[in-house]
Amino acid sequence: MRISQLAERTDVPVHTLKYYLREGLLMPGVATSRTRAEYDEDHVRRVHLLRALVEHAGVGIDGARRVVAALEDPPGTRAELLGVAQRTVPATGGDAEVSDEVRELVADLGWTVEPDGPWMRSLTATVGAARAAGLHLEHRRLVEYAHAARDVAEVDLDLTEDAEDAAAAVRTVVLGTALLDPVLIALRRVAQEAVSRER
Amino acid sequence: MRISQLAERTDVPVHTLKYYLREGLLMPGVATSRTRAEYDEDHVRRVHLLRALVEHAGVGIDGARRVVAALEDPPGTRAELLGVAQRTVPATGGDAEVSDEVRELVADLGWTVEPDGPWMRSLTATVGAARAAGLHLEHRRLVEYAHAARDVAEVDLDLTEDAEDAAAAVRTVVLGTALLDPVLIALRRVAQEAVSRER
Repeated sequence: MRISQLAERTDVPVHTLKYYLREGLLMPGVATSRTRAEYDEDHVRRVHLLRALVEHAGVGIDGARRVVAALEDPPGTRAELLGVAQRTVPATGGDAEVSDEVRELVADLGWTVEPDGPWMRSLTATVGAARAAGLHLEHRRLVEYAHAARDVAEVDLDLTEDAEDAAAAVRTVVLGTALLDPVLIALRRVAQEAVSRER
Repeated sequence: MRISQLAERTDVPVHTLKYYLREGLLMPGVATSRTRAEYDEDHVRRVHLLRALVEHAGVGIDGARRVVAALEDPPGTRAELLGVAQRTVPATGGDAEVSDEVRELVADLGWTVEPDGPWMRSLTATVGAARAAGLHLEHRRLVEYAHAARDVAEVDLDLTEDAEDAAAAVRTVVLGTALLDPVLIALRRVAQEAVSRER
């Protein structure tokens, strides 16, 4: 299909597609003349991916670039893979010093993690920001949230085991990490309404 | 304290504080001369709130305005309150038609919710976007995520019961909805690392 048809299929304007091409986020089509190229289903999938990352996951162009690089040249181990996936959505407050509360939380839960990793810092920063803004958040509530987050992470890892082959596993980890945050946020809101009506 | 001291205390530049004042997000200080005003601890708390909303929760100025309005003039019922809190972070994909899958999911879980509410639409849109981008997400995994989201929502509602009075409950619902998404995202990443190392 031509670029105008790709735009129609994906509901993304031609000028945005040209921007993705210039940035190397969308692979070039097969040239059929000096000014025309032909695109296929791989391009449709890639555009859907870029749109989902930018519109729904709030990942910027740099994040999208990391996802595309990981898909095109998959890292060798599951740990590296998870690292790439986690760096896709940059951690907010990633330069905060990890608090004693967060260290104890993780130790009490029996979790083995990089003690000063960016998400440990982000957890410290976001909990601190919520409390500084006036939210009354007791430690035991944080523990309860952590238990629920662990259930989410178990499903996240199960998803990679659903994958048919290594390439699909890469896709699942990278996409699942970046694209399921908005799904989980929506599920939380719908569940809040349900629980609120029950009580 | 003077505005320069408020800036120092909160680590927010004076020009940003002046912007918040102009937009009515920060209440005026007590004028001590034609060009000077005095600020107090309420102002410190408000600036922390605005910073948390904008920096950590990714809520824009309109969202911050809704939070401030709800804190200053609290809605009467818990259902209205939850509505305000949920509108603070705008639903992505809020104009999508709710899919049969999402309707069945909610029915199977026994949740009573507004069938065409913005978060039901957002759930449809974000699940659709993740799949269109190439994520293999089986329905049974969505059910598992929904169970975990319900655990989160139970803690969310417990938080409002920890609140000392009605004003604190308002603060908790509004702030908890907007400010805990980034905490939950960070917890998910840390838990992923822990589960990945265990397996």
